[in-house]
Amino acid sequence: MLKIHGVPISVHTRKVIVAALAKGIAHEVVPVVPVIPDNPPPNWRELSPTGKIPAITDGDFTLADSSAICAYFERTHPAPPLYPTGARDYAEALAIEQYAGEGVFRGVVHPLFHEVFVHPKVQGIPTDPARIAAVLSKEVPEVFGYLDRLAARGYLAGDAPSIADIAVASNLVTFQYIGFALDRARYPRLAAHFDRIVALPAFAAALDRERGVVESMKLERGFLEAKAA
Amino acid sequence: MLKIHGVPISVHTRKVIVAALAKGIAHEVVPVVPVIPDNPPPNWRELSPTGKIPAITDGDFTLADSSAICAYFERTHPAPPLYPTGARDYAEALAIEQYAGEGVFRGVVHPLFHEVFVHPKVQGIPTDPARIAAVLSKEVPEVFGYLDRLAARGYLAGDAPSIADIAVASNLVTFQYIGFALDRARYPRLAAHFDRIVALPAFAAALDRERGVVESMKLERGFLEAKAA
Ligand SMILES: N[C@@H](CCC(=O)N[C@@H](CS)C(=O)NCC(=O)O)C(=O)O
Ligand SMILES: N[C@@H](CCC(=O)N[C@@H](CS)C(=O)NCC(=O)O)C(=O)O
Repeated sequence: MLKIHGVPISVHTRKVIVAALAKGIAHEVVPVVPVIPDNPPPNWRELSPTGKIPAITDGDFTLADSSAICAYFERTHPAPPLYPTGARDYAEALAIEQYAGEGVFRGVVHPLFHEVFVHPKVQGIPTDPARIAAVLSKEVPEVFGYLDRLAARGYLAGDAPSIADIAVASNLVTFQYIGFALDRARYPRLAAHFDRIVALPAFAAALDRERGVVESMKLERGFLEAKAA
Repeated sequence: MLKIHGVPISVHTRKVIVAALAKGIAHEVVPVVPVIPDNPPPNWRELSPTGKIPAITDGDFTLADSSAICAYFERTHPAPPLYPTGARDYAEALAIEQYAGEGVFRGVVHPLFHEVFVHPKVQGIPTDPARIAAVLSKEVPEVFGYLDRLAARGYLAGDAPSIADIAVASNLVTFQYIGFALDRARYPRLAAHFDRIVALPAFAAALDRERGVVESMKLERGFLEAKAA
């Protein structure tokens, strides 16, 4: 069976899991937590040349990088499509998927996750409140403002849910898990988009699976419960 | 006409220019240099949400991110193909293209370019020799070692030149422009791959266009001349 190596609460692993669930691809998640020293298996770099999660193994085939993996799924399981058809919508979906990795993850979620979780709880490094403040005052308005404008269209690229929507919402889940609120008054279109995407059956199923880990990590989950109620 | 916004000596801009040349896409390069403060035009963030180069405009359509742009070209101009056909080769090409951005560019070329060029020549910050030494002793062996193993196959994904080869060779051009040698004894398969890729007509044409800028920036170019001689 296809194996997804990673942790479901990682932004990029979640994207791949949601894509697999959306396409009905049978899979098993093999836990790998790169931020915990010595956690990855000895052959990890053969599966993931950068050491990051996720990577997959499909028989004797191995592949790292969430965008390559989702594109692979689209080729092996074209239905339902997770990429728009027209050249412009398709390219826009890819650009937003990349932006989710560079702008949203690297600019916002990654630094915050390190400050509130990895540094204090894994590496014994004190949280740097100035860094958190800087991300919240500079990156968040820039990034969320941009996404809020994009979200005005309903879906971020084309007229159906695509990899772009999954990639962005996956970041917003982790942002909220670690205790930051999505400012619904300031970013109403992004908030509405988020609610719509996490309610998609594949996304909801993925979040459901994460419940145990999220509770054991004592992360915030109220923002999802409120919806479910 | 399609406009490519960026500078030809940027790793990711070069990838897009080579792809456009390979596919015979008429285009114009509009210089934008994000590392020079106030150089980008006032509307730059509308073209490139992260502020990075390259971005393109094609009539009223704008798109940022080199991988999205190359995928767009593939849709609008399928011939000659720059992506392998089979699902595995195709996915592998995408994974290597991403690795060129994360492993090779971010891990090696970006820090070196900043230390030898942006810091001392643009920002008036002294070069940090310890950082250069660290990249050369840790990242370079890891990254080039991996690429050297991949290059054993001839092309990096599938059996014809693809976006993966262009993405990797584009990084190695800039690595050498800024004065670092590709260790041909230690990475012979990578060196042979590099020679093969920069000799492709579209790549050679792109490098030819860069000659003026490279000479005016007093960058190294001998590694290309040696080949041409
Ligand atoms: N471009 C990669 C990025 C993956 C990535 O950043 N993964 C994070 C977790 S979401 C990770 O492994 N971080 C641990 C590390 O950097 O060592 C992808 O899309 O798969
Ligand atoms: N993922 C982007 C990365 C682009 C990128 O890193 N561009 C560099 C030049 S090669 C840049 O704009 N650097 C200036 C900056 O970071 O402000 C792409 O593939 O287009």
